[in-house]
Amino acid sequence: MIVDIINKKRLGEELDYKELDYFFNGYLSGEVKDYQMSSLLMAICINGLTEEETFCLTKIFVDSGDVLDFSKDIKVLVDKHSTGGIGDKTTLVIAPIVASCGVKVVKMSGRGLGYTGGTIDKLESIPGYNVNLTDKEIIKQVKDIGVVISSQTANLVPMDKVIYALRDVTGTVSSIGLIASSIMSKKIASGADKIVIDLKMGNGALINNHEDAKKLEDLMIKIGKIYNREVSVIINDMNTPLGYNIGNALEVLEAIDIIQGKETDTHLVDVCYDLASEMISMGKSISKEEALKEVKDSIGSGKAYNKFEELVTAQGGNLDKIKISNKTKNIRAYKNGKLTKIDALEVGKLSVKLGAGREKLDDKIDYGVGIKLNKQLGDKVRKGDLLATLYVKDNVKISNIKEMFVIN
Amino acid sequence: MIVDIINKKRLGEELDYKELDYFFNGYLSGEVKDYQMSSLLMAICINGLTEEETFCLTKIFVDSGDVLDFSKDIKVLVDKHSTGGIGDKTTLVIAPIVASCGVKVVKMSGRGLGYTGGTIDKLESIPGYNVNLTDKEIIKQVKDIGVVISSQTANLVPMDKVIYALRDVTGTVSSIGLIASSIMSKKIASGADKIVIDLKMGNGALINNHEDAKKLEDLMIKIGKIYNREVSVIINDMNTPLGYNIGNALEVLEAIDIIQGKETDTHLVDVCYDLASEMISMGKSISKEEALKEVKDSIGSGKAYNKFEELVTAQGGNLDKIKISNKTKNIRAYKNGKLTKIDALEVGKLSVKLGAGREKLDDKIDYGVGIKLNKQLGDKVRKGDLLATLYVKDNVKISNIKEMFVIN
Repeated sequence: MIVDIINKKRLGEELDYKELDYFFNGYLSGEVKDYQMSSLLMAICINGLTEEETFCLTKIFVDSGDVLDFSKDIKVLVDKHSTGGIGDKTTLVIAPIVASCGVKVVKMSGRGLGYTGGTIDKLESIPGYNVNLTDKEIIKQVKDIGVVISSQTANLVPMDKVIYALRDVTGTVSSIGLIASSIMSKKIASGADKIVIDLKMGNGALINNHEDAKKLEDLMIKIGKIYNREVSVIINDMNTPLGYNIGNALEVLEAIDIIQGKETDTHLVDVCYDLASEMISMGKSISKEEALKEVKDSIGSGKAYNKFEELVTAQGGNLDKIKISNKTKNIRAYKNGKLTKIDALEVGKLSVKLGAGREKLDDKIDYGVGIKLNKQLGDKVRKGDLLATLYVKDNVKISNIKEMFVIN
Repeated sequence: MIVDIINKKRLGEELDYKELDYFFNGYLSGEVKDYQMSSLLMAICINGLTEEETFCLTKIFVDSGDVLDFSKDIKVLVDKHSTGGIGDKTTLVIAPIVASCGVKVVKMSGRGLGYTGGTIDKLESIPGYNVNLTDKEIIKQVKDIGVVISSQTANLVPMDKVIYALRDVTGTVSSIGLIASSIMSKKIASGADKIVIDLKMGNGALINNHEDAKKLEDLMIKIGKIYNREVSVIINDMNTPLGYNIGNALEVLEAIDIIQGKETDTHLVDVCYDLASEMISMGKSISKEEALKEVKDSIGSGKAYNKFEELVTAQGGNLDKIKISNKTKNIRAYKNGKLTKIDALEVGKLSVKLGAGREKLDDKIDYGVGIKLNKQLGDKVRKGDLLATLYVKDNVKISNIKEMFVIN
């Protein structure tokens, strides 16, 4: 039976709910082995999942654990998910801004793996910040101050936890259907009524072309409808790192700059304003233009940054104690010209090499290391100009500067 | 690196020797995990292996263990491999016949798994028969009596042993390239100079269409050339079981009938004569017609059966002690007509259900059970005619007689 199901998908046939349920729950119970699941996952990656299969799989994922329900305590809860990218600190920026505008946000985040960072790791670079709140603590905090950013609680889609870990080490990440059920099952189980998906597309993201991005958008909206959740998807470029800083503490510092209105002219700021406006627009049922005005007002008046401090303090963090490595190394322009590419994937790889990310699940992160870009895409540079400063722990040798920074 | 290699094959790209070597030997050493290997195997099954990849993989398989060399002791050694099928007792028939004609045969066989039987299990239905000879015992016996049928020695292509077991439980059996490297690496390591491959094609075999069979033939001949081994491939039908008997002891008894010249008119007999003639023709460098004459003479004169007795005695077996279950159940024609199909796969499944085969590696076999067909494909039958006798241990319920025996 187990092998019959694998063979069916190997031959490109559609699996029904019963077969998917038997196989995936069999994996949780131990009857289906790791090596059988990874074989099926690879067949799924190459031969695809139909819409119906994706809906079935999402249901199986959701049903594998608890489904949180905040409806007794909170009227409208808005959630946001980013599919991840290099230098992506949007959650840190958006959550307090949206909350400062009166829309409640409970954001359950994950850790980084591969070349993309994770919000939870970034928050842990703030000494004292507690990322492991209980359901009760989450509800109390969101009622008190309107915003929470914490790790996923233990029994939230346990199926996704084990499958995600297996996909990561078996080359079976790239499947639209698997990505859609993984994201949507977690958002549905997290209890939000309205969901904004920040879908990254580019060489530094899981999805690297527009066709796949549209397919994924379409699937997630359809899944949302089944569960009566309003889903809005915004597709954002991820060929270039987001903002100036890459690395955990460095990204928190850049997020603060944006929340305080000090950084205003980057693509990252545009993305943050756009996502925050979308969330506020959905949460308050107002136009996106009105919502954008609220975002800018909140930043200008200092309300947004006050909310950020309130959030950090509520979860025990101390912003004064954030540390950046005091050992640096500069990367300089190797010729005159225009900066036509800052390669997100290469920058991501470098940040992992510096110690800012994990290659294996049990790798330890160095919060103080990272990369601070000094130029943006399209800038004119002269030979010797500072392109980036690396905050390092040990001496590193960087051999691929010309692939990371393309000057033409 | 491990995941990069899997991703490359997932995207349908060609892997080079270094990558395949790193991955497969990493699996033997434990660095590459089961779930990573099965993921790669599935990508290989769906996206295929190029010729060059198949050659590399064969080399990696061969190099993983000992390569036997009989050239000091034996001038020309001929080996035969069957890709397996239902009721396939050709090895039991051919090895003594070929040896009786003066061509030395060392046959290393395997056990059955899935619906197809294994020569080693069949031989173990002869009480006392020792299937576990050492290299020294093998060489002594082939010098003494010219024929050996034994299990593969421990360190013969260890890579194939682990990969084969994994493929069986992960739905990754059906890959021409994997099949070619698995078969050829074992034949090359077994030390034979000339190799006859009995390639089964049909619903009861791994290969079920002519195009795949020709591809596999072509690949195996090319691999043989690289290692300076003469390879001859004979494609044989496996939609219908071979001969009358299916089940371990029952198959030994049918083999004896053929070696003694008592069974002469079945497709199985044609296949055995053809394979034996091919082996003798290759071994003695004579025409196939001359070789066929030798086969018939040897059977007619009793020389062939004497050699079979000599083989069994040399390995400690006692033919008088073979036992068949004394509990039987008859299957009768359910209408008048012509027997247009005896479905090999259904018969194979039934034999496993009766206890003649294994579903899992550690299942125990009942040597005395099985199926004795009473009619051949194309025979006219009348309602109530005996189609088959089942030799059973317990009562069995058979529900799919009309799928197994199609009467039109």
